[in-house]
Amino acid sequence: MPAMPAIAGVRLATAAAGIKYAGRTDVLLAVLDPGTTVAGVFTRSKCPSAPVEWCRANLKGARPRALVVNSGNANAFTGKSGRQACAFTARIAARAIGCRLADVFLASTGVIGEPLRAEAFDGVMESMVVAARPGAWLDAAKAIMTTDTFPKVATATAKLGGATVTVNGVAKGAGMIAPDMATMLSFVFTDAPIGARALQRLLSDGVTDTFNAVTVDGDTSTSDTLLAFATGAAADHGAPRIASAADPRLKPFRAALNAVLADLSEQIARDGEGARKLVEIRVEGAVSKASARRIAKSIANSPLVKTAIAGEDANWGRVVMAVGKAGEPADRDRLSIWFNGIRVAHRGARDPAYDEATVSRAMKSPTIALKVALGLGRGADRVLTCDLTKDYVAINGDYRS
Amino acid sequence: MPAMPAIAGVRLATAAAGIKYAGRTDVLLAVLDPGTTVAGVFTRSKCPSAPVEWCRANLKGARPRALVVNSGNANAFTGKSGRQACAFTARIAARAIGCRLADVFLASTGVIGEPLRAEAFDGVMESMVVAARPGAWLDAAKAIMTTDTFPKVATATAKLGGATVTVNGVAKGAGMIAPDMATMLSFVFTDAPIGARALQRLLSDGVTDTFNAVTVDGDTSTSDTLLAFATGAAADHGAPRIASAADPRLKPFRAALNAVLADLSEQIARDGEGARKLVEIRVEGAVSKASARRIAKSIANSPLVKTAIAGEDANWGRVVMAVGKAGEPADRDRLSIWFNGIRVAHRGARDPAYDEATVSRAMKSPTIALKVALGLGRGADRVLTCDLTKDYVAINGDYRS
Repeated sequence: MPAMPAIAGVRLATAAAGIKYAGRTDVLLAVLDPGTTVAGVFTRSKCPSAPVEWCRANLKGARPRALVVNSGNANAFTGKSGRQACAFTARIAARAIGCRLADVFLASTGVIGEPLRAEAFDGVMESMVVAARPGAWLDAAKAIMTTDTFPKVATATAKLGGATVTVNGVAKGAGMIAPDMATMLSFVFTDAPIGARALQRLLSDGVTDTFNAVTVDGDTSTSDTLLAFATGAAADHGAPRIASAADPRLKPFRAALNAVLADLSEQIARDGEGARKLVEIRVEGAVSKASARRIAKSIANSPLVKTAIAGEDANWGRVVMAVGKAGEPADRDRLSIWFNGIRVAHRGARDPAYDEATVSRAMKSPTIALKVALGLGRGADRVLTCDLTKDYVAINGDYRS
Repeated sequence: MPAMPAIAGVRLATAAAGIKYAGRTDVLLAVLDPGTTVAGVFTRSKCPSAPVEWCRANLKGARPRALVVNSGNANAFTGKSGRQACAFTARIAARAIGCRLADVFLASTGVIGEPLRAEAFDGVMESMVVAARPGAWLDAAKAIMTTDTFPKVATATAKLGGATVTVNGVAKGAGMIAPDMATMLSFVFTDAPIGARALQRLLSDGVTDTFNAVTVDGDTSTSDTLLAFATGAAADHGAPRIASAADPRLKPFRAALNAVLADLSEQIARDGEGARKLVEIRVEGAVSKASARRIAKSIANSPLVKTAIAGEDANWGRVVMAVGKAGEPADRDRLSIWFNGIRVAHRGARDPAYDEATVSRAMKSPTIALKVALGLGRGADRVLTCDLTKDYVAINGDYRS
């Protein structure tokens, strides 16, 4: 776990509101200084949660002053009462901070379909605003956990003009592993003075090969939310104000932001429900990057590939199956497959040098690199996932009942 | 298990060739009388098995005289040796029966990527041709099993003109649950005198709402094969020869064929690997049948929905998630959901009359009917699947290693 520096302009507080869990924090408040900009990326679900709709509606022209996140209840599929819970939460936060309702951003994770008792926040909001302090990043990451087994934080610095700026991020939830449990939420903060449009462009670009390239079970949440806040406080020590994502001075910052997004999304794959192995799937030689992505996702979401990896079996036959079902151009007789650097299949048949004992040893590693070469073109891509174990079934089959 | 009548023009034999299993049969031979027609539907995988390619190449203008099926090895991703194994198998069958190579149809199921030792069939083919007899349907279904827990047979009769004709079918494998294990294979036989083009039309139409509406894990096999053979023997007792699928006299036959396909495909869902519950997913009020199908498949393939059903939890929040991720038109606030006839969610929120105890009791049933009403249009569809249990992970994680 890295040491998390403070971000000027961001203060954090957590509290135990008793939404669902006993004996732990379940609300996070981030108080943002005036002048902060915001960007957001949300679930593509056609049945989004009330907080997702709230954030979407308030993103444009926002002057964000607060972020309120709760765990234990997703406030999704809650109808009119869900919208009311959003408005109520925003109202008490706005009153405590002294800002407009629309300046409060919201996210929720937990059970779907149960009404969220937002009144519970009323008892803790005022004291959270008073208690909020700059450095409480690990506490923040803990307050938003559901089935996560560890809190997820990441940090990076970059030069912006002559100044050093910092990017901090927290995340929760096992990727797109979904409802009742593990909505993917992530919040990134920086002191860099970056305008909202530029920040949105950077964030939308950044998710393509990070959060959007992670899957645990292919089940997209109703609540997936990634918000980035830029306080601009680094302008005080000489960072230039950036209005356009095309500004060449942004290059190191973009790299730092992408590093934080990549770090957090990898932690989500590593902590997939029941997971024992982190699996990197790399597809090369596809007709395009998009085609490589679809093939990599087909492999990453195949229950048969994932259970084989859980069983430490280099079952490349199932990889062939997953390539074949992806619906993308593929030529069986040009296909080669590697597990952790060992070529097991070559040009449409088992590798002549295949040695079961060597491969079995390699499969015992906690990290599995699965490479597929299609031999058709120059399209390549990479997706992260985890194995599928009996614990996944136990966690999700024994949960609510 | 229904009593399976003989089909005039079809004789069956099985043998133990020792391809992979010990102490059980693993080869099926069906000998077909001259004049038989054939139709086929195959996997859409881009990496099909050698027997799938063999059948596809020989389907047009075929005069089928034999079907040879083995279990224990899929002869998939076996390169040149796979094609040679097909040719060798066809050659020994053709020699024993006295027909052309192209008149022999082939299917294989089992491990992917291991070369198939087709020589093993050499020792049993001649004696199988001698032993073949009309009524051995249950033995036929047993010889093609892999991880199936019961043999799958179905039968129906229909009037064709003034004559009664019979349709028999056998199948194996837990749906599209794929490689190394449980390729879906099914073979249907009838004595009805139906031309190849008409038979193909009937078969292609018939799979849409039967085999193509079944999923166990969304993993499409490299080897899925459904072949229908029509011997025409019923012409001897007055059945008219049918050349066109549009012939109105076909109506009862079409119903009988579809009943056999529906029966076999339901057996496959019921026997999904590790399954304890048969799950019927019905989607209504979609904008089209195709949209309803995609939403139903999204629900049926969701690991979170399937594990919840394994846990006997009417977790409709996960159903909402699966509707939302399908990418099809859906309006959260019009959505209603039923489990075994009990409405649990109504117009975008929990049903006001929801009673956990009543619903929990209903979820203990071995058959779960999950209905989703979208409230948008008149599109409806139905898909069959099963629950996802720890046994699925055990079967597929402990298999090859």
